[in-house]
Amino acid sequence: MSDLQRYFIPSENWTDNKVTITGDDVHHIARVMRSHTGEEIICNHPDGYAAVCRITDIEKDTVYTIISKWLEESSESPIDVTIAQGLPKSDKMEFVLQKGAELGAASFIPVQTDRSVTVWDQKKTDKKLKRYSKIIKEASEQSHRNKIPRIQKVMSTTELATDSGNYQIKLFAYEEEAKNEVFQSLGTAISKISRGDRVLLVIGPEGGFSGREADVLKQNEFIPVRLGPRILRTETASLYALASISYHFEELRWT
Amino acid sequence: MSDLQRYFIPSENWTDNKVTITGDDVHHIARVMRSHTGEEIICNHPDGYAAVCRITDIEKDTVYTIISKWLEESSESPIDVTIAQGLPKSDKMEFVLQKGAELGAASFIPVQTDRSVTVWDQKKTDKKLKRYSKIIKEASEQSHRNKIPRIQKVMSTTELATDSGNYQIKLFAYEEEAKNEVFQSLGTAISKISRGDRVLLVIGPEGGFSGREADVLKQNEFIPVRLGPRILRTETASLYALASISYHFEELRWT
Repeated sequence: MSDLQRYFIPSENWTDNKVTITGDDVHHIARVMRSHTGEEIICNHPDGYAAVCRITDIEKDTVYTIISKWLEESSESPIDVTIAQGLPKSDKMEFVLQKGAELGAASFIPVQTDRSVTVWDQKKTDKKLKRYSKIIKEASEQSHRNKIPRIQKVMSTTELATDSGNYQIKLFAYEEEAKNEVFQSLGTAISKISRGDRVLLVIGPEGGFSGREADVLKQNEFIPVRLGPRILRTETASLYALASISYHFEELRWT
Repeated sequence: MSDLQRYFIPSENWTDNKVTITGDDVHHIARVMRSHTGEEIICNHPDGYAAVCRITDIEKDTVYTIISKWLEESSESPIDVTIAQGLPKSDKMEFVLQKGAELGAASFIPVQTDRSVTVWDQKKTDKKLKRYSKIIKEASEQSHRNKIPRIQKVMSTTELATDSGNYQIKLFAYEEEAKNEVFQSLGTAISKISRGDRVLLVIGPEGGFSGREADVLKQNEFIPVRLGPRILRTETASLYALASISYHFEELRWT
């Protein structure tokens, strides 16, 4: 069952017991997977539920299916984690999105930090977000997730900090902390998270946060945390944190 | 210096340049080690740093010390983890080595598995291992490690399995486990690891292990584990495991 190909289908395409597929997924079903009428796929609804759907007809731009079985399963993390990533160099943002989606992130925010070498081109925002969305969608399908993480608009560290009231737990990875005498271990931080909490984790770019940014974050009740004793590259930091949160709440609890 | 007795002291017992010792350690210092005022011990702070401390007073329930020297902290994992990676496609092996070095792996073994699309070219072995070594060295320097992980020669799954007697803990990531109702959680597996143990974790290639390989591994006492509820790409699996081990032993232990 879980070997069936999965597709994330927008809510407007779900009616009664039918799911209609349009867009790029049609090409994937008909040409890449070479599926035929009568075969089954899994359709994921944006709200997190999923169904096995039998293909009833394949047209040029549309695939028609009928729901044959609702699935009771969730591979979603019990913790809602948003990764706010200081814009890194080259294509590292794409790496963070792909791996973050695999590791269970709920949402991403690109952050234009003081030391980001990459400057976000506002004119190319639509094109860039579209590409990012595609990467996140594919990674979510690959890892059998029930929900696709959201990608939010780019903001500055100050905007992020002052607009963070909706999160119960606010953390930032402060490299200086790892060298410092007084800092909070990630174990301490994660142990304070409760199921259902919304967590916001801010990661600096290659050069880390400026002192000004660290101050703004601290003033807005972000807690500096260490992500292990080794210095991680900016694109590895969120992976370490997401894996640790998954391990803590999805694997360790079974012991 | 390293011959001095070490004690792990909770953070609340550290103030300014003084470390106050209470609980069982007092008995150990005064009765077992028969230490006296003026002698030195090493105190480890929960967050990983350590200091040489001179004993200034010994009372019935308390030992008072003053920090005489901060020690350069080690960033090495207390667990010796070898990642045996089924040869993946394209340049993903390089990714596994780079990120694995950052995340604290002790050693790597490339494995020619049944379903590896990539076939190791024996004629290019020297060149390839040289390139891999460079990637590992740079990542180790970047992440301020005290040791550079080793890269071992390529072997088959059977060679790996039958030559695994030196490891106390032998695990393999078996994707089928994630679909199964009965599996060992990574939390259970990691909780069985003791400090100083040598751990061998085998990761399949994109297509996973063949049934034959899974059987060979099981016959040689490798335990199948799940790496979280989502299906991870082959190059992400070792990262998840290494981050979890680091979190468990380097961050969580102090909460």
